[in-house]
Amino acid sequence: MAEESQKWVLMVTAQTPTNIAVIKYWGKRDETLILPVNDSISVTLDPEHLCTTTTVSVSPAFDQDRMWLNGKEISLSGGRFQSCLREIRSRATDVHDKEKGIKITKKDWEKLNVHIASYNNFPTAAGLASSAAGFACLVFALSKLMNANEDHSQLSAIARRGSGSACRSLYGGFVKWIMGKDEKGTDSLAVQLADEKHWDELVIVIAVVSSQQKETSSTTGMRDTVETSLLLQHRAKEVVPKRILKMEEAIKNRDFASFAQLACTDSNQFHAVCLDTCPPIFYMNDTSHRQASFLNLIISLVEKWNRAAGTPQVAYTFDAGPNAVLIARNRETAALLVQKLLFCFPPKSDADLNSFVLGDKSILKDAGVESLEAIESLPAPPEIKDPSQRHRGDVSYFICTRPGRGPVVLSDESQFLLNPETGLPK
Amino acid sequence: MAEESQKWVLMVTAQTPTNIAVIKYWGKRDETLILPVNDSISVTLDPEHLCTTTTVSVSPAFDQDRMWLNGKEISLSGGRFQSCLREIRSRATDVHDKEKGIKITKKDWEKLNVHIASYNNFPTAAGLASSAAGFACLVFALSKLMNANEDHSQLSAIARRGSGSACRSLYGGFVKWIMGKDEKGTDSLAVQLADEKHWDELVIVIAVVSSQQKETSSTTGMRDTVETSLLLQHRAKEVVPKRILKMEEAIKNRDFASFAQLACTDSNQFHAVCLDTCPPIFYMNDTSHRQASFLNLIISLVEKWNRAAGTPQVAYTFDAGPNAVLIARNRETAALLVQKLLFCFPPKSDADLNSFVLGDKSILKDAGVESLEAIESLPAPPEIKDPSQRHRGDVSYFICTRPGRGPVVLSDESQFLLNPETGLPK
Repeated sequence: MAEESQKWVLMVTAQTPTNIAVIKYWGKRDETLILPVNDSISVTLDPEHLCTTTTVSVSPAFDQDRMWLNGKEISLSGGRFQSCLREIRSRATDVHDKEKGIKITKKDWEKLNVHIASYNNFPTAAGLASSAAGFACLVFALSKLMNANEDHSQLSAIARRGSGSACRSLYGGFVKWIMGKDEKGTDSLAVQLADEKHWDELVIVIAVVSSQQKETSSTTGMRDTVETSLLLQHRAKEVVPKRILKMEEAIKNRDFASFAQLACTDSNQFHAVCLDTCPPIFYMNDTSHRQASFLNLIISLVEKWNRAAGTPQVAYTFDAGPNAVLIARNRETAALLVQKLLFCFPPKSDADLNSFVLGDKSILKDAGVESLEAIESLPAPPEIKDPSQRHRGDVSYFICTRPGRGPVVLSDESQFLLNPETGLPK
Repeated sequence: MAEESQKWVLMVTAQTPTNIAVIKYWGKRDETLILPVNDSISVTLDPEHLCTTTTVSVSPAFDQDRMWLNGKEISLSGGRFQSCLREIRSRATDVHDKEKGIKITKKDWEKLNVHIASYNNFPTAAGLASSAAGFACLVFALSKLMNANEDHSQLSAIARRGSGSACRSLYGGFVKWIMGKDEKGTDSLAVQLADEKHWDELVIVIAVVSSQQKETSSTTGMRDTVETSLLLQHRAKEVVPKRILKMEEAIKNRDFASFAQLACTDSNQFHAVCLDTCPPIFYMNDTSHRQASFLNLIISLVEKWNRAAGTPQVAYTFDAGPNAVLIARNRETAALLVQKLLFCFPPKSDADLNSFVLGDKSILKDAGVESLEAIESLPAPPEIKDPSQRHRGDVSYFICTRPGRGPVVLSDESQFLLNPETGLPK
């Protein structure tokens, strides 16, 4: 332990991306260990636009483990936090900070408490996989602090205990979560299929409908599906394994047609098994959000566009939340997509374009839409049946992004979320 | 042939019920012969409230086959009409009407033309199985006119060529359409599981949302599902056969709990395979009808009610159209159901109660709702989250009905749709 003083504080800050599944994870074979019924594949989103930043710190002065999320203290007593903390602590090794004169032995870590502060640069629980980025960042940052010399795959298996899809946020680019066979879950972990530079033409546009929390939690929904859907087992055992192979091939070859076809059909099948659940789960048409028309319209727009173009231009995928994720084959297509989306879902009249389209705003320039007036004078997309009906205000905002990198450690102290002296939130 | 005169007209009028599937038919293994990928089970609805009446007539004076539907002449050139006409004609036998002095031999039928007039006592193509009742009635009436001595099962196989579910309208009560194995479809026919008196407590309430035609026709939808859904084959081969056995057992034992559970889950699974289709089919949330909220609300109401009651009170089932079919375990429950439905979906203020609730209106008395004012002062059902939101006008009208009888011949000339002298519409 540090010899000179009990007042030292040691900290690490990390940034971790969120991810969107293109072959979906739905259903656990073990609820405690969070072991899935099938493999899944995701695209990591650029942390510049969507990420979690987490500062973890340790000090002999801390009398208990504490955590702050987006500035508010939250309880760490939940099993998922405890699993992650326990797993990382058991892998802690000796730390020697020569500059500060701090020595922490493997044994010391059992007694030392940590402070954790985490911040999402996007709305929490809006269905944007905040828990995926969050648990991945927690585990990654703690592993750095505690000098746990595990590779990213091994860390992913720990993050998985926090939130299943978190394991896929340990890598950038294109990631596969291998379901594994081991009863204890040691082989249920993520691997990188390709990094973000492998296929950097893709543009991802997220339409955020509402930042209200979803009605059915994923955990409850998955449990109900596993217990009651007679189609889920067929999906998990027969359909997904073949799709995973095809999706890996599509990613390897940057074959957008296959990628889009697989992503769309898998998103629809995920919602199909939700509907085959008793009682049925309607993530795609929550009564409270006018969502049915929103998602139907987007699906119909994309399907018609892809058919007319002769080959897929855009893929859609919908998670267990109210938002739509659209993946365009390249920037040109993305500009067209943004035009079509802004026509269908213009902002409320008192909106500010700058807070209506977030992320990579340069797409707006490509789309020739640099003012609210330009949105109003957009031509009606040919895919739309009734161009007189514009769904004003149905989309809260859009985020334009791209495939992005995996977790990184931030060394700039200004980005730390905890005070380096006190270990309390800044 | 009639010897005395070429002016005679011979006619038969029949009435045939519609039916609602409780184990769904979705997907053909042969499109021309209309052979399904699985068995299905239906309840025949009381023809007093929903039926087709068809008059078929023959005369040497008719120079071609002609048909009128709801008073308008329609073409008989379609393959489905032609199949039914050809099949019945090939089974025609000698007819001798002593009173009129008419003799028609088996051979004469090949040259004689028919006139057909058909009338539905409910909106056509509103998703109320008008084609089922229609083709069943056509085949049944023609078989009587032409003295085709086939039993109802054999006739059902002919009606199937007109519209798959028509085969189930050849019987009253509870009916199974056996998919059969024969490539030519000879064994794909309907059998009666129990007549309408076997379980006469059931009350059926249909909420009609709109009489607009549905967006995706069943034929196209089924074809797309068969070609693209990876879940359909599993449903057809693994799930439905077991459900059919359980549903037969539930009907035999009048076991409402099993009946309701099977009907609801099968309806949801049918919509799940529609969603698993490429492009996905959304019968449950058509953009144009505000239907998402309508059906979600009904499902959520029934699911909550059934859970709170400890045992199912009401079953729901939704076909490939915009309407909801609710089956209540008995009249007491039906009265409660009607109260809840009228609370959630009151008529527009200028409505007339008499044309808002059709069919067996005595349920209204049981429900204590005999005026529009009574609807306004109904208590909010405990299953409803937000009782301030009443979906006024979302339901066009309700039909209260019950399990009913199979086809009958009508002898009352006032009910004939063709003039007995001319064979033309009255």
